[in-house]
Amino acid sequence: MLLDELMKRLEDKKERIIEIRRYLHEHPELSFQEEETAKYISDFYKDVPVDSVETNFGGQRGVVVTIKGSHPGKTIAIRADFDALPIQEETGLPFASKNEGVMHACGHDGHTAYMLVLAETLAEVKNHIKGTIRIIHQPAEETPPGGALGMIEAGVLEGVDAIIGIHVMSTMKTGHIYYRSGNTQTGRSYFKLVVQGKGGHGSSPHLANDAIVAASAFVLNVQTIVSRRINPFDTASITIGNFDGKGTFNVIKDAVTIEGDVRTMTPETRELVEKQIQAFANGLETSYGVESKLEYKNDYPVLYNDPDVTEQVRQALEQASIPDVESILETPPQPPSEDFAYYLEKVPGCFFYVGAAPESGEAYPHHHPKFDINENSLIISAKAMAAAVASYCGE
Amino acid sequence: MLLDELMKRLEDKKERIIEIRRYLHEHPELSFQEEETAKYISDFYKDVPVDSVETNFGGQRGVVVTIKGSHPGKTIAIRADFDALPIQEETGLPFASKNEGVMHACGHDGHTAYMLVLAETLAEVKNHIKGTIRIIHQPAEETPPGGALGMIEAGVLEGVDAIIGIHVMSTMKTGHIYYRSGNTQTGRSYFKLVVQGKGGHGSSPHLANDAIVAASAFVLNVQTIVSRRINPFDTASITIGNFDGKGTFNVIKDAVTIEGDVRTMTPETRELVEKQIQAFANGLETSYGVESKLEYKNDYPVLYNDPDVTEQVRQALEQASIPDVESILETPPQPPSEDFAYYLEKVPGCFFYVGAAPESGEAYPHHHPKFDINENSLIISAKAMAAAVASYCGE
Amino acid sequence: MLLDELMKRLEDKKERIIEIRRYLHEHPELSFQEEETAKYISDFYKDVPVDSVETNFGGQRGVVVTIKGSHPGKTIAIRADFDALPIQEETGLPFASKNEGVMHACGHDGHTAYMLVLAETLAEVKNHIKGTIRIIHQPAEETPPGGALGMIEAGVLEGVDAIIGIHVMSTMKTGHIYYRSGNTQTGRSYFKLVVQGKGGHGSSPHLANDAIVAASAFVLNVQTIVSRRINPFDTASITIGNFDGKGTFNVIKDAVTIEGDVRTMTPETRELVEKQIQAFANGLETSYGVESKLEYKNDYPVLYNDPDVTEQVRQALEQASIPDVESILETPPQPPSEDFAYYLEKVPGCFFYVGAAPESGEAYPHHHPKFDINENSLIISAKAMAAAVASYCGE
Amino acid sequence: MLLDELMKRLEDKKERIIEIRRYLHEHPELSFQEEETAKYISDFYKDVPVDSVETNFGGQRGVVVTIKGSHPGKTIAIRADFDALPIQEETGLPFASKNEGVMHACGHDGHTAYMLVLAETLAEVKNHIKGTIRIIHQPAEETPPGGALGMIEAGVLEGVDAIIGIHVMSTMKTGHIYYRSGNTQTGRSYFKLVVQGKGGHGSSPHLANDAIVAASAFVLNVQTIVSRRINPFDTASITIGNFDGKGTFNVIKDAVTIEGDVRTMTPETRELVEKQIQAFANGLETSYGVESKLEYKNDYPVLYNDPDVTEQVRQALEQASIPDVESILETPPQPPSEDFAYYLEKVPGCFFYVGAAPESGEAYPHHHPKFDINENSLIISAKAMAAAVASYCGE
Repeated sequence: MLLDELMKRLEDKKERIIEIRRYLHEHPELSFQEEETAKYISDFYKDVPVDSVETNFGGQRGVVVTIKGSHPGKTIAIRADFDALPIQEETGLPFASKNEGVMHACGHDGHTAYMLVLAETLAEVKNHIKGTIRIIHQPAEETPPGGALGMIEAGVLEGVDAIIGIHVMSTMKTGHIYYRSGNTQTGRSYFKLVVQGKGGHGSSPHLANDAIVAASAFVLNVQTIVSRRINPFDTASITIGNFDGKGTFNVIKDAVTIEGDVRTMTPETRELVEKQIQAFANGLETSYGVESKLEYKNDYPVLYNDPDVTEQVRQALEQASIPDVESILETPPQPPSEDFAYYLEKVPGCFFYVGAAPESGEAYPHHHPKFDINENSLIISAKAMAAAVASYCGE
Repeated sequence: MLLDELMKRLEDKKERIIEIRRYLHEHPELSFQEEETAKYISDFYKDVPVDSVETNFGGQRGVVVTIKGSHPGKTIAIRADFDALPIQEETGLPFASKNEGVMHACGHDGHTAYMLVLAETLAEVKNHIKGTIRIIHQPAEETPPGGALGMIEAGVLEGVDAIIGIHVMSTMKTGHIYYRSGNTQTGRSYFKLVVQGKGGHGSSPHLANDAIVAASAFVLNVQTIVSRRINPFDTASITIGNFDGKGTFNVIKDAVTIEGDVRTMTPETRELVEKQIQAFANGLETSYGVESKLEYKNDYPVLYNDPDVTEQVRQALEQASIPDVESILETPPQPPSEDFAYYLEKVPGCFFYVGAAPESGEAYPHHHPKFDINENSLIISAKAMAAAVASYCGE
Repeated sequence: MLLDELMKRLEDKKERIIEIRRYLHEHPELSFQEEETAKYISDFYKDVPVDSVETNFGGQRGVVVTIKGSHPGKTIAIRADFDALPIQEETGLPFASKNEGVMHACGHDGHTAYMLVLAETLAEVKNHIKGTIRIIHQPAEETPPGGALGMIEAGVLEGVDAIIGIHVMSTMKTGHIYYRSGNTQTGRSYFKLVVQGKGGHGSSPHLANDAIVAASAFVLNVQTIVSRRINPFDTASITIGNFDGKGTFNVIKDAVTIEGDVRTMTPETRELVEKQIQAFANGLETSYGVESKLEYKNDYPVLYNDPDVTEQVRQALEQASIPDVESILETPPQPPSEDFAYYLEKVPGCFFYVGAAPESGEAYPHHHPKFDINENSLIISAKAMAAAVASYCGE
Repeated sequence: MLLDELMKRLEDKKERIIEIRRYLHEHPELSFQEEETAKYISDFYKDVPVDSVETNFGGQRGVVVTIKGSHPGKTIAIRADFDALPIQEETGLPFASKNEGVMHACGHDGHTAYMLVLAETLAEVKNHIKGTIRIIHQPAEETPPGGALGMIEAGVLEGVDAIIGIHVMSTMKTGHIYYRSGNTQTGRSYFKLVVQGKGGHGSSPHLANDAIVAASAFVLNVQTIVSRRINPFDTASITIGNFDGKGTFNVIKDAVTIEGDVRTMTPETRELVEKQIQAFANGLETSYGVESKLEYKNDYPVLYNDPDVTEQVRQALEQASIPDVESILETPPQPPSEDFAYYLEKVPGCFFYVGAAPESGEAYPHHHPKFDINENSLIISAKAMAAAVASYCGE
């Protein structure tokens, strides 16, 4: 019943979703600066018969919308993120970003567009709803510490029985939906190491302490963590993306700053890598007589999909027979990290993927200046989320 | 006779040397930009009875002055350099640099000051001079390719029998003069290596080719040149002073630029090091599948003091009994490079050192923002050079 | 019917399996030298009503036994290996190895024991069998190139529809059976690198070419293959287990021999690792001027369990309700390699694991001098294999 | 007078020196095992009118002979070493070593031969001698801790005013004599590092701790000592001649033993290198979690020739006009180490070199299985030492 109603009504709003998405795409805002977008979202709800709209949620720009069904039932949270990236768009689209150097290159415009229209539709059919639906419009997914933490601290998960999220994927075929149970996206850590040696004239190395040599040894040492410390059947990647040893060719460099990124799939591996990186930082002091200042931060945790919720969502998707959806497939784990993982640490839930590869032309990866999605993925997302919600709150 | 005359007259001009030095110290100019200094020098000669003053020598800012003695004899060149360094002075001296970010932090102000006054004095006593004295005021010693090469190409050494130069040294005791026969200062080479890999997302290293890892391996490989390829009784230093791998912590770096400085004491070692660095650059391509673009330039050669000239200068200094000069000592080779070496490739000569450590307080090394000299070293320099010249051109 | 008959009869032969296993355990023989064991096996069949016993199969010590059922059907091969290891037993068991330095430290004695008794039992109930059962007693599993290849070349798989194998596992709980569909055990490669430099006196490195330094650089370079070339969600391990640079402290080593072991889970990764190791071997020549002689051999491939056969076996095990079997569980991939993988390259099949951890005391890993199994795992193995066979050949 | 007498008499004994040398060459003995050689030496003196012959000097196989001149004067020690090397001779000489695997491949046979004959001759002309001559026949020069230390402890230098030694050099032209004042031969240190990790199966690196990887990192780290810690104008070499990581290709190595040799020219550099090697050994523990057991021993010190003695010897050689000696030349420092350095730590002295390159054919270096000398160098050595002694003790 609920599902049928939602499906029918959403089908009629297909074009509106696209319109909203294009508007948002033209007006992207960076993480923690999404003032206009947040206003756009709350304005959208002005005439929508939802039960509450909370803005500036938890001191951030989050918007939390509550829809109470006519019947008692569970509380289900559904989340869409709405921040953009510091990328100069190169798509050449008619609705390309109007904000210099800022771009919705990860699909959050689409997430927000389908979610607004889905929320409106849910509000229209309250009499078919059992329980409560909490719609989380979350800012700042792209930039650690991320927006999710603040929303959680401000109580967004209070009373929530399950949480569901979707990511549209330009690299997955449109018409495919992908799910995975258990550990699904990597956890992430960040580190910064300042190697402090002693500068000097290039012709007198014995009077100095060459920070570039010590830092280079660190880079090579760190390779042995993945090659020798990690179970070959486990997952870890460590990238040193910044080696700032800019200097003058004939002056021995006094200090080098290194920054790196760590991905793991279990808390044990996360700890192991941290311990090893600390060991190599300390070892540099012992070996090379430099000073090592290491800052190490774990941010987004491993994204863990609850097996029961995931199975329920999978079945709901199968049974919904969403038009244009060819298959519902299991996916291997995904390398990126995602702050939806914080919600999943608190309540059971499922984060799944809606294929959005452009019909023709190259599928540019997320965060690419030419990133684009097949907009048909948006109505699919709306209906897929509708199916998931209906499996919990439908009559 | 000549020597006695010079000694007497110079003693009276002690204070003038210091005045000139202080003026120049206040008005430093960078290599290849020494317009005002060159003008100051040529203006100085306006009323001095020299035989010729050539300005803009060889298209550069060199000033070449010729003094012909009344008697036939050899042609002796003496050289002083006059450029300054891109350093912000921190001495707090009353005559500190008035040019923001530019400083005479290597004593070239002093070289020019004593040389002007010595030239004037020589011009006064032509009747005591056998042969010809060519005074080379050379720009751009500090910055390769250096000013010497241009002067030589423009003919400054034509007919010259020997060339003599002095460097005042803040790190050597005032009252000491140091000499060395044979190879005395290092030759220098420069290299720049661009390691071109392939960028990518930190969580997917297999899709990228990490330039920071490859460049770090290069840095460690290069250490083995000095440790394993160079005769332990020979000299070589290789400094990588620039490792520009600045990037974003979670993005695999696509390219790294490395710049280095090489010092050697023989042409064979110079070639050996170049060959080895080329081998490691090539090896990076073979091993890591990156592209290595290596640029390698030899600049200032090894400074070779002719044993005969050096012995003659040494004896002249011994016999001159210059006041305040305690000892004339042999020095070990000096790590820095010096473009006077180019002259010495063409004609026999000697480049020697006049101690200039400040009377009290710390002796800051050359190129330090607090570099300073004991000004008493200037009259010593003038007299030492006078002695050397007199040994060739005195009656 | 078939299954019931087998189960009943096997239960009565429980003790005989153990007797046979203990006899074999006392008389272990190394790979490719299993003369007595092969004779023991073929002697066993003297009075057993099997249809054929082929010895010295394919020029090796393999014994292939054929049992034709009374009814038409499929041909199913089942395999047990029978070689032992070059290990000095330290179990202190009353039936410990009588052959100095040779030990059944991997459970092949148990494999052969249960298989002989199962074969005998199958021969007793031919009238219940549809199709043909081929029993493969295979030598030389432990030592590449392994016994399986020879058996296959000699035609052991001709006409075979599916092949099934079991390994008892001291590290898995007795009462548990483990299976996995798809890639299940690693493929393996071996490499040997001779780094040829030039010897010399330790005090004159410039006259030599230090092979230890070059080989050490190779070891560190190789770490970057796993850390940077392999998808973090894929599997690869590279171990350099031999670095033979034994020499005199003050003599520069002329040559070093390195040997390594590679494990991968896909043919693509296998090739990738080989290519990279070759690149680093070549890179050593370019970089260090040494000569690199690399020998690279792929041996046991990735063990791939056919999903259909595996599912059929799993169901058969579930339905058989074997006494003492608590659970039938999915296992993650297993690090070791196994030459059963060669059979699976030719015909679909399934290789699964029977828990055999000793009841009390420590579970020593396979290939350990104190390795032992819970002998109850043998009757479980017999019945599990009976169930698998019956699912294909039972009425 | 003394010199003339010695020269004349030695000339007549030319052939005897060669005979003795060949006998000794046929009967080489290893360091600390020179029983027969010591006996041969003491037997030689049976009928020679020396003042004393002390055998088993200081509990070793040293033989110390004293010759007192008829006139008062200084006490001069002259030293010849007599041990051989663990090398299988490959010269094919008619008087090649009869002791399997032992060879006089460093010229100590020649040293002893000329010294015996010189001693005999000195004893014949006591009436021309002022002062005392102490002849030191020293064992065990080749093997640390060396024979010199024991001789010194037993008092061989008591009352000695100066000590003089000679080394024949196959790599220097026969007819040339080489000397150097000041630091002349390197000091030597030895180290042994055991890197203790944890063994394991090659396919499970995370359960082990790979000692080969850690030890390889140590090898590369150590290269930075010479490349970055040593003044480019100073001398140091560090050779790791033993990297014993022999193991099985697919077993992670639990421990590696490294042995190395260090050469330096000053005590400060010696200490610096030791400190740095200790730092890298410690750093391995911090970085790689292995255990590092470092043993570090300084043995032969830098050989320091006293400038005054050296100048006196040089002049004596010049004035002696020894036949067949073309030139007396200054030599650069020599890479090898020599335990004569211990004597020079206690009393002033001079150790110099007599060219001994074979007339025709290749000059094999010392310690080579084909090492040989031009025997004409022996009479030159005898006369050169005679000249040196006569300059102190001649009338």
